[in-house]
Amino acid sequence: MAPNATRRSERSHRAILEAALELVAEVGYPKLTIEAIAARAGVGKQTIYRWWPSRAAVLLDAFVDLGERAAGEEPYVIPDTGDLEADLRGVLRATVDELLSPAYDLPYRALAAEGIVNPEIAAEFVRRVLEPSAQRYVERLRAAQRAGQLAADLDPRIAVELMTGPITARWLLRTLPLTHAYADAVVGMALRGLSPR
Amino acid sequence: MAPNATRRSERSHRAILEAALELVAEVGYPKLTIEAIAARAGVGKQTIYRWWPSRAAVLLDAFVDLGERAAGEEPYVIPDTGDLEADLRGVLRATVDELLSPAYDLPYRALAAEGIVNPEIAAEFVRRVLEPSAQRYVERLRAAQRAGQLAADLDPRIAVELMTGPITARWLLRTLPLTHAYADAVVGMALRGLSPR
Repeated sequence: MAPNATRRSERSHRAILEAALELVAEVGYPKLTIEAIAARAGVGKQTIYRWWPSRAAVLLDAFVDLGERAAGEEPYVIPDTGDLEADLRGVLRATVDELLSPAYDLPYRALAAEGIVNPEIAAEFVRRVLEPSAQRYVERLRAAQRAGQLAADLDPRIAVELMTGPITARWLLRTLPLTHAYADAVVGMALRGLSPR
Repeated sequence: MAPNATRRSERSHRAILEAALELVAEVGYPKLTIEAIAARAGVGKQTIYRWWPSRAAVLLDAFVDLGERAAGEEPYVIPDTGDLEADLRGVLRATVDELLSPAYDLPYRALAAEGIVNPEIAAEFVRRVLEPSAQRYVERLRAAQRAGQLAADLDPRIAVELMTGPITARWLLRTLPLTHAYADAVVGMALRGLSPR
């Protein structure tokens, strides 16, 4: 493409992603349509269908893009201050804040709901969002194992889920309030276990 | 109502619940409509709207009814053999089997997806399905605390989620395979904790 056409194409691409995020927040996922995204972005429907097969695919790209812009240049790494419990409390509290913030809550919830009934979107969501996030915990837990702060014989990929699973389930199913105190309790129980010491 | 009218009404009610479960399995939740449920049950749409405000409300009643019929007369209680780890493995393995069986998986997944974007359905789902299930674990964990097999100072309602949260999240988000071995690993890590002993 000529430079002008490339720039126009990039502008349309970005306008579509922004329109998808705005609309899911304004009207909700059940009423999000390709038509409405096209109208908001000022492009034709065919422009969207040339790049994405469905509204869920647009929203997934928009959500990944949102995360990448929030992270900035550096790939996010869970801090290692030497205090494993403090570091895990910090990252889980930040996750709670993120899940409760409208900018993330609405598109994230929409994608999770779509993924529950749509295995292809679920697989993309896992590959691009959930598994990279799990791997950041795995790295931190491996460092803790090397430092002797975590049992050496356990699988860190499963250990991650002992902390992220309760947070995710409470958020998705809305069983009980999602708070920093809850995140702290989950980290404490996971590290020390439920059995008497 | 006259006895005949009452019997007819009960028959229609049951036919509607069965039609909802059959159709969600056959066509999926996105294509489940009140029209299709009415046609399958052999009733008019207005009969359904007289009793339920939405397709999600019909499906929730059908799902609760399915669980009650499976449980039979006796309310389900988690066994207490004195071996806490074995009892928890048993109930979590049974949960895995239930989540993976088509009779439960499809309507349960549809209700979870609806609840994620629909707080009213989420609240009903929590009240009628998820919280009664959590309370069965709480009872078993309280017995373990009395028997000195579980730390006395921890909140059993949060401790439950250390085991059910990872199972629920893996199932809903389809991150990694949901297996008996995974259930066993989660119970072991939750009881003994992640820290070195």
